[in-house]
Amino acid sequence: MSARWTWHGGGLEAARRHFGAGDWIDLSTGINPHPWPGAANMVFDWQRLPEPEALTRLEATAAGFFGVDPRHVCAVPGSEIGLRLTGALVSRPARHFAPSYRTHGEMIANCAPIEPEAARGHDGTLILANPNNPDGRVTGGAAMRALLNRRGTDDWLLVDEAFADVDPGASVATLVDDDAKLIVFRSFGKFFGLAGVRLGFVIAPQTVVAALRERLGAWPLSAAAIAIGTAAYADRNWIAATRARRRADAAALDALLVRQGYRPVGECPLFRLIEVDDAQALFERLARRAILTRPFADQPRWLRIGLPANADARARLEAALTDG
Amino acid sequence: MSARWTWHGGGLEAARRHFGAGDWIDLSTGINPHPWPGAANMVFDWQRLPEPEALTRLEATAAGFFGVDPRHVCAVPGSEIGLRLTGALVSRPARHFAPSYRTHGEMIANCAPIEPEAARGHDGTLILANPNNPDGRVTGGAAMRALLNRRGTDDWLLVDEAFADVDPGASVATLVDDDAKLIVFRSFGKFFGLAGVRLGFVIAPQTVVAALRERLGAWPLSAAAIAIGTAAYADRNWIAATRARRRADAAALDALLVRQGYRPVGECPLFRLIEVDDAQALFERLARRAILTRPFADQPRWLRIGLPANADARARLEAALTDG
Repeated sequence: MSARWTWHGGGLEAARRHFGAGDWIDLSTGINPHPWPGAANMVFDWQRLPEPEALTRLEATAAGFFGVDPRHVCAVPGSEIGLRLTGALVSRPARHFAPSYRTHGEMIANCAPIEPEAARGHDGTLILANPNNPDGRVTGGAAMRALLNRRGTDDWLLVDEAFADVDPGASVATLVDDDAKLIVFRSFGKFFGLAGVRLGFVIAPQTVVAALRERLGAWPLSAAAIAIGTAAYADRNWIAATRARRRADAAALDALLVRQGYRPVGECPLFRLIEVDDAQALFERLARRAILTRPFADQPRWLRIGLPANADARARLEAALTDG
Repeated sequence: MSARWTWHGGGLEAARRHFGAGDWIDLSTGINPHPWPGAANMVFDWQRLPEPEALTRLEATAAGFFGVDPRHVCAVPGSEIGLRLTGALVSRPARHFAPSYRTHGEMIANCAPIEPEAARGHDGTLILANPNNPDGRVTGGAAMRALLNRRGTDDWLLVDEAFADVDPGASVATLVDDDAKLIVFRSFGKFFGLAGVRLGFVIAPQTVVAALRERLGAWPLSAAAIAIGTAAYADRNWIAATRARRRADAAALDALLVRQGYRPVGECPLFRLIEVDDAQALFERLARRAILTRPFADQPRWLRIGLPANADARARLEAALTDG
């Protein structure tokens, strides 16, 4: 199996080369398969440098969605670069939850993994995702506050909330303050289903926001990222409907997996993890039926499965799981 | 006069608020007013994360345009962030040409200005733009090679070639090599007239490219930046025609300025600098006629004027300059 698929989801081009063309279903990511529909018909001003005022409006609109003061919000061209730039600023000995998203182990030099259980007693700088990726486990609000309160004077709690938008109940974004050692990362592309826009947010004390802006310079975002993000975060009806629908889709995926004898792990509404004896074999079986999932090089029993877009896609997944 | 206009060009929204609505001509930037036309009709895949293969194709196409090996090319979401990320990597005592683009003084901590004349004898890390901004002066190829050869063992020559695309004769991009202490920055938005796309390139030794990729993460560019950039850099006919036309436009602007008693400075085909007794007064006179130019807070005699898009815009500029 190519390292491409265990490196990150979304490797459809490599999958087509390896397994052949066809009507592929991409379940290898945690991206909402029903994107915010407004982007398709928008016209962008590509000619001019985006106005600072437009960036400010986007950040204010996103801050409203997150429920935080806009002064704590810094837009970035994708949460991936947001994690890495912030890691370079923090630059302290750090631990990251294991298992977790790979970038968490790369964003601060010499960052070491730590089990969630052991992390409760750790007081240094700590990086985790909530909901976690790839296992979808959610750390509740009270446990998150306990983690925050345990930080030492100079140590940070860094929380990647890339998958928090469907169910923001456990988000700690509202606890960010100039006196708190807390930085939260949010992603636009996953919940809104528009990962190609490259838009994310760092929610942090104002000193960190100022340092990030210095690293980013004056025009961190494309005209499209500003226009799409501003309109999408303001679309309260779509947001409410999408939250309900993706929860229903996740329940339908759970039911399907249980019918097929799997026990899905986690509570992230945008993907599920299953444990099997030979995840590589199952990955390949599904791929031969043009269904791309997400295996893990260091976890040969894990397969992560994103939300099928509709009943047809669920039926194809179920048929592929049935036909050994 | 608001600090907005002396901070950077392109502040049209602030200009409308201050001077009133109207049919504004924006001559405050060095952005080609005739953009590459293909972007308007392109459809983008906003849903998926851009494939790594697509990023590689963009970098290879751009490398062909620059005349360099693709292994030395790293795409970034705007040359502004490229300058700042690279500055943080280089992180050595440095000097920057004065006058020059403001970011050059901010990209490395404690960077100090140096006169071009004095820079010839300096052997530390040096940052300059060629053509220079705002005065448009071009340092020739031989002088650039002399500057490069004078660097000490650990010191860098950093060359911002944001305005080099119309006339790349003085570009040193082809001298970048793993053994050379040379990093070159290129901008997509200025020559192609699409600054809102946010796309730039760092051309550097492979160790620097690798370090930049680590800072950027896997998806530094939007789907649109990849698609537009790949198509535009491959459009040889448009590139050749645009080079000839912008040179003609710059000559027409020169003639206009000379007719009005000014002596335009520099050879950058995308803008001209003029020296006047009271640049602020001239800025305001033009702005009251809905023509936005670029004044400088620390240079009260300077006004930078971008290329008018056509004969009508030139006529309006000339009339505004005539009517004291």
